[in-house]
Amino acid sequence: MTEPLALADVEAAAARIAPHVETTPLLEAPLLDAELGFRLLVKAESLQPVGAFKLRGAFNQILQLTDEERRRGVIAVSSGNHAQAVAYAARAMGVAATIVMPQDAPRVKLERTKALGARVEFYDRLSNDRDALTRRLAEREGLRFIHPYDDPRTIAGQGTIGLEIFAQTRAKGVAPEAIIASCSGGGLASGIALTLGLYARAPRMFTAEPAGFDDMRRSLESGAAQVNAALAGSICDALLAPTPGRHTLPILLACGARGLAATDAQVEAAMRVAAEHFRLVLEPGGAAALACALIERERFAGMTVVVIASGGNVDRKDFAAILDR
Amino acid sequence: MTEPLALADVEAAAARIAPHVETTPLLEAPLLDAELGFRLLVKAESLQPVGAFKLRGAFNQILQLTDEERRRGVIAVSSGNHAQAVAYAARAMGVAATIVMPQDAPRVKLERTKALGARVEFYDRLSNDRDALTRRLAEREGLRFIHPYDDPRTIAGQGTIGLEIFAQTRAKGVAPEAIIASCSGGGLASGIALTLGLYARAPRMFTAEPAGFDDMRRSLESGAAQVNAALAGSICDALLAPTPGRHTLPILLACGARGLAATDAQVEAAMRVAAEHFRLVLEPGGAAALACALIERERFAGMTVVVIASGGNVDRKDFAAILDR
Repeated sequence: MTEPLALADVEAAAARIAPHVETTPLLEAPLLDAELGFRLLVKAESLQPVGAFKLRGAFNQILQLTDEERRRGVIAVSSGNHAQAVAYAARAMGVAATIVMPQDAPRVKLERTKALGARVEFYDRLSNDRDALTRRLAEREGLRFIHPYDDPRTIAGQGTIGLEIFAQTRAKGVAPEAIIASCSGGGLASGIALTLGLYARAPRMFTAEPAGFDDMRRSLESGAAQVNAALAGSICDALLAPTPGRHTLPILLACGARGLAATDAQVEAAMRVAAEHFRLVLEPGGAAALACALIERERFAGMTVVVIASGGNVDRKDFAAILDR
Repeated sequence: MTEPLALADVEAAAARIAPHVETTPLLEAPLLDAELGFRLLVKAESLQPVGAFKLRGAFNQILQLTDEERRRGVIAVSSGNHAQAVAYAARAMGVAATIVMPQDAPRVKLERTKALGARVEFYDRLSNDRDALTRRLAEREGLRFIHPYDDPRTIAGQGTIGLEIFAQTRAKGVAPEAIIASCSGGGLASGIALTLGLYARAPRMFTAEPAGFDDMRRSLESGAAQVNAALAGSICDALLAPTPGRHTLPILLACGARGLAATDAQVEAAMRVAAEHFRLVLEPGGAAALACALIERERFAGMTVVVIASGGNVDRKDFAAILDR
């Protein structure tokens, strides 16, 4: 694909994946709005069958495999949600999936990936040998690599969320002024950015990252890809990509996106708000965008703000401990 | 209203309340299905703005008030979800609401009812003076009483869930064989029962009650209204009505509904399943139908079963303790 990604690619993806993914609700909590001083809408992607938006990009990839690629199978690298998404979509289409995962992936994500029939190979997150391992496996077995974010087909798939947000806000008669998406490599945010042209007045796009892992925020500020100092150490296990994608950063720069970040404590507070006001179970990375909205009350005062609740795969006991704080 | 309730009343309610309520998703968890041996679909009514299906009946009531009734205001008796629903719908339509609540109502439900602008009056659940108190207030102030379940307008409103289930299962290409609804007085179950004629082959309707508070189960078996021995003592605070409604029981008898019941421990296990597999925060009463599905694997083997996740208003720390077990 040499053409730049555009709205038409997202619309084609939406038609392709429609039979396989949920149209997730856009939730509101009027009592919370009164506290916040702005109108908050939560796009509950945690309600997808695998508990994360990643299912959209995975299906948009698997559904475009050639017959030869289908026969050989696919391979993906993921700390968890992309893994489950690729495993789920591959199984649905009768394709073999190999997933390369970090040894410290949350147990619930590991177990479910296996239960979905995928073969799992491990790497050590700190020694970071995952790319070499993945390349070796892909070459030896002729597997098609499904990138978690830096691939036009993945990005177009995630962007289908943006089409739903446009339709759902229009149905409610509201005009969103900001959309906040959790950000690891930027696939979700850049995909949604491709849909901003639908609006009469385009909402501002924001990325939400863990504090200390805010490579996208610094990249958007500087105009060039920045790299995180650390590879691990945030509660948001799903948001630890070291640097923006080559495809994702230009899209986000082009639309004037800005970066936000939240600490672990702020993310945990957002998980409690999600449970109490929206009755949603969110994993830390899935609550990052909500966390950024909650800590930016002055910036968003009086506005209508959409946040993506991007995932809900959290170990039950870890979740209980966070709720109990 | 002297005509018997029918599908047309539910369809009229749906048109009336559509701008005010969410079309909630019908969720699936394929990995759980593999464990259970049947296909389970969860109608997530916990995602309504007040966290419970009760919003449907409340709007169908408030939207049909006469001008005079609007001016005087409404009154309702509720342990919580009906209270919030009436308060929310009344506020939305500019009507004053008075809510009569038990002193032991969950704190989160009490606080939110107040935050929604309702006046709250308390009664003692064990001395059961609520009907006298409510009648006195209603007469003195000329307030219209909004019954939580035993009123045709309430039942028709709750029945709109059944229309959504019909449309959503048809869109998925599945034919439900059973629908399980949590049951206190029977408004939800009887409302849905009014929609069963839409199906080529009607699913069997089941009610789900707390063990020991299974007046509806015993009433459906005997063909006459039975009464619970106790008025309090279940974790399912929302499901403690002492006997079926005069309107609800005949509808459920007519469609051949059957009663199921779950213990507190089984309800808590269902709350954990809802969090882990569907990423939903459910209150005990909201998980009763799921609990009954989980404990009736033999009965439902190989079938397609819809359960209503009817509410999600649970104190955060109580929920954390249940998740941690």
